[in-house]
Amino acid sequence: MRLLFVGFGTVGQGLAELLLEKEKFLAENYGFEFKIVGIADKIMGSLFVPEGLDLEKALKMVKEERSLASYPGGEYKKDALSLIKETDADVMLEATYTDIKTGEPATSYIRAALERGMHVTTTNKGPLALYYRELADLAIKKGVQFLFEGTVMSGTPILNLLRETLAGSNITEIKGILNGTTNYILTRMEEGFSYEDALNKAQELGYAEAVPDADVQGWDALAKVTILARVIFGGKGNPFDYPCEGITKITAGAIADAKDRGKRFKLIGKVWREGSDVKASVNPEEVDMSHPLGGIMGATNAMTITTDTLGEVTIVGPGAGRTETGYSLLIDILKINGIK
Amino acid sequence: MRLLFVGFGTVGQGLAELLLEKEKFLAENYGFEFKIVGIADKIMGSLFVPEGLDLEKALKMVKEERSLASYPGGEYKKDALSLIKETDADVMLEATYTDIKTGEPATSYIRAALERGMHVTTTNKGPLALYYRELADLAIKKGVQFLFEGTVMSGTPILNLLRETLAGSNITEIKGILNGTTNYILTRMEEGFSYEDALNKAQELGYAEAVPDADVQGWDALAKVTILARVIFGGKGNPFDYPCEGITKITAGAIADAKDRGKRFKLIGKVWREGSDVKASVNPEEVDMSHPLGGIMGATNAMTITTDTLGEVTIVGPGAGRTETGYSLLIDILKINGIK
Repeated sequence: MRLLFVGFGTVGQGLAELLLEKEKFLAENYGFEFKIVGIADKIMGSLFVPEGLDLEKALKMVKEERSLASYPGGEYKKDALSLIKETDADVMLEATYTDIKTGEPATSYIRAALERGMHVTTTNKGPLALYYRELADLAIKKGVQFLFEGTVMSGTPILNLLRETLAGSNITEIKGILNGTTNYILTRMEEGFSYEDALNKAQELGYAEAVPDADVQGWDALAKVTILARVIFGGKGNPFDYPCEGITKITAGAIADAKDRGKRFKLIGKVWREGSDVKASVNPEEVDMSHPLGGIMGATNAMTITTDTLGEVTIVGPGAGRTETGYSLLIDILKINGIK
Repeated sequence: MRLLFVGFGTVGQGLAELLLEKEKFLAENYGFEFKIVGIADKIMGSLFVPEGLDLEKALKMVKEERSLASYPGGEYKKDALSLIKETDADVMLEATYTDIKTGEPATSYIRAALERGMHVTTTNKGPLALYYRELADLAIKKGVQFLFEGTVMSGTPILNLLRETLAGSNITEIKGILNGTTNYILTRMEEGFSYEDALNKAQELGYAEAVPDADVQGWDALAKVTILARVIFGGKGNPFDYPCEGITKITAGAIADAKDRGKRFKLIGKVWREGSDVKASVNPEEVDMSHPLGGIMGATNAMTITTDTLGEVTIVGPGAGRTETGYSLLIDILKINGIK
């Protein structure tokens, strides 16, 4: 199986490390063998090696911030789109940065790869939240798979669980803690930190960006909620069609007061059916401490699925991370190979 | 697909109700259609209807405690084994009572069905904890599937999650709350009930048996742990090869003392690798309240899976119940049909 990396930052490198580490395990356990035929990185350039490149060497070059143009024996392309259009890979692994307003450049990359008959797996929320139906239809038309396990809860296999493992169930509601940064901030505030100090701590640890709006205003959770609304319930809404409130108005006093009543503030993303409508929202909620979501502390994510067959089932796991998100791409690659 | 019920108590009836309720949904969504060609019940008798029986009518008869011998137009068999040996079903749904010491009569039923080339799904812990390898090998030899999602955490799809959804991961440890009755008792004790009062309450609610040993001595959790050791890690041990301690020695004082230190007693079943050995145990542990397992209250089950790719992933859901366990059989039936 010929793989093409598009986007080779934290997530792409996380997958590359996993593939190197697990090459033998994957061959022995699943008969899965692969070649990397190209890597496109915004800064380090776009490299095509038709016979398969030395992943360890390319990874080292990128980590040392050396341009891929100097990779011996490779064809250097002017940009990612040229690489996609001229490569004969079987699967494109798309892990560029998320732009939730335009979905670009990822959506153009995915369109180009599907058009060429490549399977696509992505960790990018933009194309899913904005163009899921169009891209899924294009994949069907081209007879290829379009997978995106990592867009919600990174490698914690929530989409597989919802789409396959719970087959035969009627899912009526999905709600959860979909943003680790805000859950970390709320956890520190319960310990007595002010909002500002908790945010600073999250920034120090690399959980929050210098401009933390995508997390603290709830937009990251909103993108994930929109993906679930589209993929699981067939919803047609765009992210900003749904009500969204972040955590910036929650005070330490309100948190202490809730705690006295056995409650805990959580930023809850929710999708549910109301008649034939699909509804979604993101907002802070007081969750009972005895509910599984009430016990989720720190940067962990969790999702409670309500079904007709089992009542509530909750899955708790990482929602971000180099290896964890890299692993989501591996799940999808194995699935494309009929392994699950 | 021709289905044969063997064991038609709570779980079998739970599945029958689900099949009736979801008949249209399953046909429309998965193209899955079925006939029930036989029902064997220890008390109501064994019925064979080659052209397919009226499930609603048979279910009503059993609920009204009328012998299946009076079902019009059916062939009445002298026992379940005769029925299995003379029926041409595609799948046997085995849901008789669990005997963890002998695995009988379920193991004989499963052997007979596999020998005849039927797929088998069971909710019965006995055959799995004692004869998993033999039965799995027989299924492979006969080219049929042998599935048992309901043996651990009822319909909460933990085995599918471990065996398929986490493909590509190296699982190093599985630990969790695998018995709802004891977790319910511990929850009530934390609220101030004595062990005896909490046990009485559990018996009133139907969670605990009149002789509660299988739950409170940890044997039910031990059977599940043994199944996980065999199925996930290839362990060869029988249930009583592993150390097992129940909850009968935990005092209200110890629970209160743990709580003051931010801990909570849980009956933890655990399986892990130690070099090339597979280890397992059941015993009460003080779990940190900030750990997902520390927050599981009442009769709910939960399991934390440690992997190289994701760190810890926890799944929380029902561990028992009529519909919930019935649904585990439906998961397996759909899987046999290539639907997941």
